[in-house]
Amino acid sequence: MELMEAIMRRRSIRSYRSDEVSEELLNKILEAARWAPSWANTQCWEFIIVKDKQTKEKLAETLPPPNPARGALSTAPIVIVACGRKGKAGFYKGTVTTVKGDWFMFDVALAMQNLTLAAHSLGLGTVHVGLFDSQKAEEILGVPDEVEVVEMTPLGFPDKESKAPPRKELKDFVFYESYGKK
Amino acid sequence: MELMEAIMRRRSIRSYRSDEVSEELLNKILEAARWAPSWANTQCWEFIIVKDKQTKEKLAETLPPPNPARGALSTAPIVIVACGRKGKAGFYKGTVTTVKGDWFMFDVALAMQNLTLAAHSLGLGTVHVGLFDSQKAEEILGVPDEVEVVEMTPLGFPDKESKAPPRKELKDFVFYESYGKK
Repeated sequence: MELMEAIMRRRSIRSYRSDEVSEELLNKILEAARWAPSWANTQCWEFIIVKDKQTKEKLAETLPPPNPARGALSTAPIVIVACGRKGKAGFYKGTVTTVKGDWFMFDVALAMQNLTLAAHSLGLGTVHVGLFDSQKAEEILGVPDEVEVVEMTPLGFPDKESKAPPRKELKDFVFYESYGKK
Repeated sequence: MELMEAIMRRRSIRSYRSDEVSEELLNKILEAARWAPSWANTQCWEFIIVKDKQTKEKLAETLPPPNPARGALSTAPIVIVACGRKGKAGFYKGTVTTVKGDWFMFDVALAMQNLTLAAHSLGLGTVHVGLFDSQKAEEILGVPDEVEVVEMTPLGFPDKESKAPPRKELKDFVFYESYGKK
């Protein structure tokens, strides 16, 4: 699929068919994440691929009940849990280098954007799920202290297409030469 | 350009020609950022497009001297400064909703990944620059308190191609069903 088409047509999918996703498709999607850039090439991202029904249901329970993605995490054949290893991105020889502290949220997002675009280009749906009890998810998955669960996405064939939510116009978020100047 | 080609061939470009970048190309790249997903569609990203030579040089001076991207920020015709508006991503009615606090680093990264892929597909180079004094950059650009400068990238036609730094193998960062399980 053409890049700009993938960028503009990707939607957040909250309704999935239960059809399996082949290893081949899954690996292509993970390969896309693998090629993301990262802080000094530290590649702090880690992914847990969950297919087990019980584990998916436990993960879904870490979401607050009104979240529309809750059902999607149980229905979709795969849940990808994106983690960040701490103390890598934003660090130099173990010391933090910027006021932002650990950059793992930034680098995991770069990889996840590649992953979700690749999924869309292969006919698969994803949706970023960030609003859940990540510490409970870490317990469920046995994630060690030096790693944090950042977000999750269901992965599967879309059952329903979603509409694109409206976007701000460029003039609302692009400035020239200094902040606020249009 | 095909999506997977863009993902796998994008390189961090640290050497630029001084040739101008047209408004048309610049707008296509910003349009790609515009279509990124974001926390509850809050779209907290903001961009400052810097072409003024003096401002670019001032921004370059916020980098520690050994950083190889320092020269690129002065030479490239454009510097894009990516900002995040605080209190949007990760919040619900003004209250933080997860242990991660503000998610602006995550959402700005999603938009920047779109932006850098689009630039590459149009023959332009970028490089993520995160190691600099962002508070000094905020002063230079008049960024208000409720917004933070996250990162910058030069934007221009590559003078030299870079090699891809090696990537971990999938087996080094992908686990199945629980953490660490291959």
